[in-house]
Amino acid sequence: MSDLAPVEDLVRGVRPGGPDPDPAAILAAGAWTTLVEPGDRVAGALIGAFGPAEALDALRLDTPPSPNPELRRAFDRWAPRFDEASFVRAFRNAAQIGARLLVPGDADWPAGLDDLAEHGPIALWVLAPSGPLRRFDRSVALVGSRSATPYGERVTADAACGLADRGFAVVSGAAMGIDGIAHRAALASKGRTVAVLAGGLDRFYPAQHTDLLHRIAREGVVLSEMPCGARPMRERFLKRNRLIAAMSRATVVVEAGARSGAANTAGHAAELGRGLGAVPGSVYSAASAGTHRLVREYGAVLVRDAADMAELAQDPDGAVTLDGLDPVPTADPDEARVLDVLTTRPRTVLDIAARAGLSVADASAALGMISLTGAAVAGPTGWSRVPGATRDDRGAPR
Amino acid sequence: MSDLAPVEDLVRGVRPGGPDPDPAAILAAGAWTTLVEPGDRVAGALIGAFGPAEALDALRLDTPPSPNPELRRAFDRWAPRFDEASFVRAFRNAAQIGARLLVPGDADWPAGLDDLAEHGPIALWVLAPSGPLRRFDRSVALVGSRSATPYGERVTADAACGLADRGFAVVSGAAMGIDGIAHRAALASKGRTVAVLAGGLDRFYPAQHTDLLHRIAREGVVLSEMPCGARPMRERFLKRNRLIAAMSRATVVVEAGARSGAANTAGHAAELGRGLGAVPGSVYSAASAGTHRLVREYGAVLVRDAADMAELAQDPDGAVTLDGLDPVPTADPDEARVLDVLTTRPRTVLDIAARAGLSVADASAALGMISLTGAAVAGPTGWSRVPGATRDDRGAPR
Repeated sequence: MSDLAPVEDLVRGVRPGGPDPDPAAILAAGAWTTLVEPGDRVAGALIGAFGPAEALDALRLDTPPSPNPELRRAFDRWAPRFDEASFVRAFRNAAQIGARLLVPGDADWPAGLDDLAEHGPIALWVLAPSGPLRRFDRSVALVGSRSATPYGERVTADAACGLADRGFAVVSGAAMGIDGIAHRAALASKGRTVAVLAGGLDRFYPAQHTDLLHRIAREGVVLSEMPCGARPMRERFLKRNRLIAAMSRATVVVEAGARSGAANTAGHAAELGRGLGAVPGSVYSAASAGTHRLVREYGAVLVRDAADMAELAQDPDGAVTLDGLDPVPTADPDEARVLDVLTTRPRTVLDIAARAGLSVADASAALGMISLTGAAVAGPTGWSRVPGATRDDRGAPR
Repeated sequence: MSDLAPVEDLVRGVRPGGPDPDPAAILAAGAWTTLVEPGDRVAGALIGAFGPAEALDALRLDTPPSPNPELRRAFDRWAPRFDEASFVRAFRNAAQIGARLLVPGDADWPAGLDDLAEHGPIALWVLAPSGPLRRFDRSVALVGSRSATPYGERVTADAACGLADRGFAVVSGAAMGIDGIAHRAALASKGRTVAVLAGGLDRFYPAQHTDLLHRIAREGVVLSEMPCGARPMRERFLKRNRLIAAMSRATVVVEAGARSGAANTAGHAAELGRGLGAVPGSVYSAASAGTHRLVREYGAVLVRDAADMAELAQDPDGAVTLDGLDPVPTADPDEARVLDVLTTRPRTVLDIAARAGLSVADASAALGMISLTGAAVAGPTGWSRVPGATRDDRGAPR
């Protein structure tokens, strides 16, 4: 990619608002989306510190800018995917389907994503009508189980219409059930809707929603942090949920079984200090078991309709608690080592670092990541593991 | 009643466990139930200080034991009902239907009622199987609207059975709808159930529940603080609700319209520091509007089943807030005067007393009563009126 002309061509294909003053940075940001899994904190920190182009050069040359062992491990993790042909493919395929690439700092960049800090997306691949994206700054996420009941479908449709009428964008994950109805109802009300996918924009998932997703791409926004060609995988669904939560002022779980992936999105919303709402239902409905649990155990606000949801989005009361809320498993080796030495009895970071064989900085960073998943909490006397929040304690991806 | 033999006869007829060492006190306590309306704080304070017999003598002789103008007004309020023939009638009619009279201090007296302090009942007329009453110390109140839905009926029946199976007595008000089903289901599970009536035990209300109340009298407990002959009146229903709440470790509202009397019972439970639970339901059900509001606005705990209710009764988390929760109107003239000068801007007791033309002690007492109803709150800078909590803001009695 030392040849500048192809870089500018590739970038121009996915940046209709261009020309960009620094096309190499754009190309590098897009390239990074092919290298890392969503939410890779080390990549986020590296790119935050050095910019995507310099970070990519370091990776190409295998010269980590610091002797940090975590960075060394990350380079080893990313290197196998380093393939300039795949970078080019990502851009060409995106251009072919009319997708554009957003990077942090763009006027269209959803501001809420910045709250994810180094866990945020490096860039976003976006399908939307031409011209500037409509703003996401008044959004509510409507999420829920794929196996929605007629009650949940009705609540979702009414809520999405009511939110659209109030000028809120409806954010969801395009899954079967609650998600799909939320998107459809928002479109039916001429409202904005945003579908956040776990895989690449060239492979709409689920297949049953291909037509719906094409319609959202024409009338709303479909986006993903993964490049064209990326398959929607279990872990990517769970990481995708953090984007849904971060892009929304409030996340509302309409229906969820006791172990629905919607609880994962709820956990992200809580972590981000966003409003968290849950719709009540029959105590005999398995599809409301998860929402009732969110209210009982996690301080989710009981919401009845679009008015309640709009109120929550305008003034999230922050009553959410995270303890044990649907932890996200992680493949990060530091985190695994820290998890291994975490107990329900609080330990200091120094103690944890010594036991895990990590630097205090690395242990501290790992604890931060683990706390994001709800598997660890900080108290006055140190960090402790949240009972029951184990890696195997997972629902299926939505 | 200076003639001792008839006194002993009258008392013996309603005190199967006798003989009582002080029958005159028992007779006086029963007599007081014919003189005062439920929750008369002045009567409670007077009888608490002097005992029922001495207090009754003072009333007979029109010699208030203190020059307190509130007491003078109370004497004037009670005097028109002073009629020894009606005292005798109350005892004879009670004996005739097999009712007994409980007074504070009796081994069978429901301990929870003591938390009502001077607002508590002076005595209780009780219909129950012969022998010592079964204890009420593990009780849950199940209350709700008269117009229950099939869903509410099912939740109530399941909950009452589950509570009975766990050894909890089910307390309710024998009304149509939720109340009646709660009693029936507890009986069907061979559990204890307590029906608290607003009128006398010789006039079961509602008439449709005459057979049910006879059955509860044979297998459980039917009680009232009002004597035989007393009509169930609107105000008495609302005051009756405080007994339901006080006798129970937790009060659960199963279904309630936006302005159900069940919210009044919930308010008493909250005031008494009892657990307050509310059952969720469809957001489209008017019968769940009140329970959702209790969760959203008053911190009621969302409860799904008997297990949740038993947990609440064992460990009420006290998350309830009272502001504006279904205030009870009052006929007390001091309270009316205080209410007239209360504003949403806080005022000191001194200021309020001056504006209302009351002594500081009387204004203070009235404020205490008003705060019990949720219509006034004390803050760091004084007392203020709770907006929307007006006397006309009433639901129908249950």
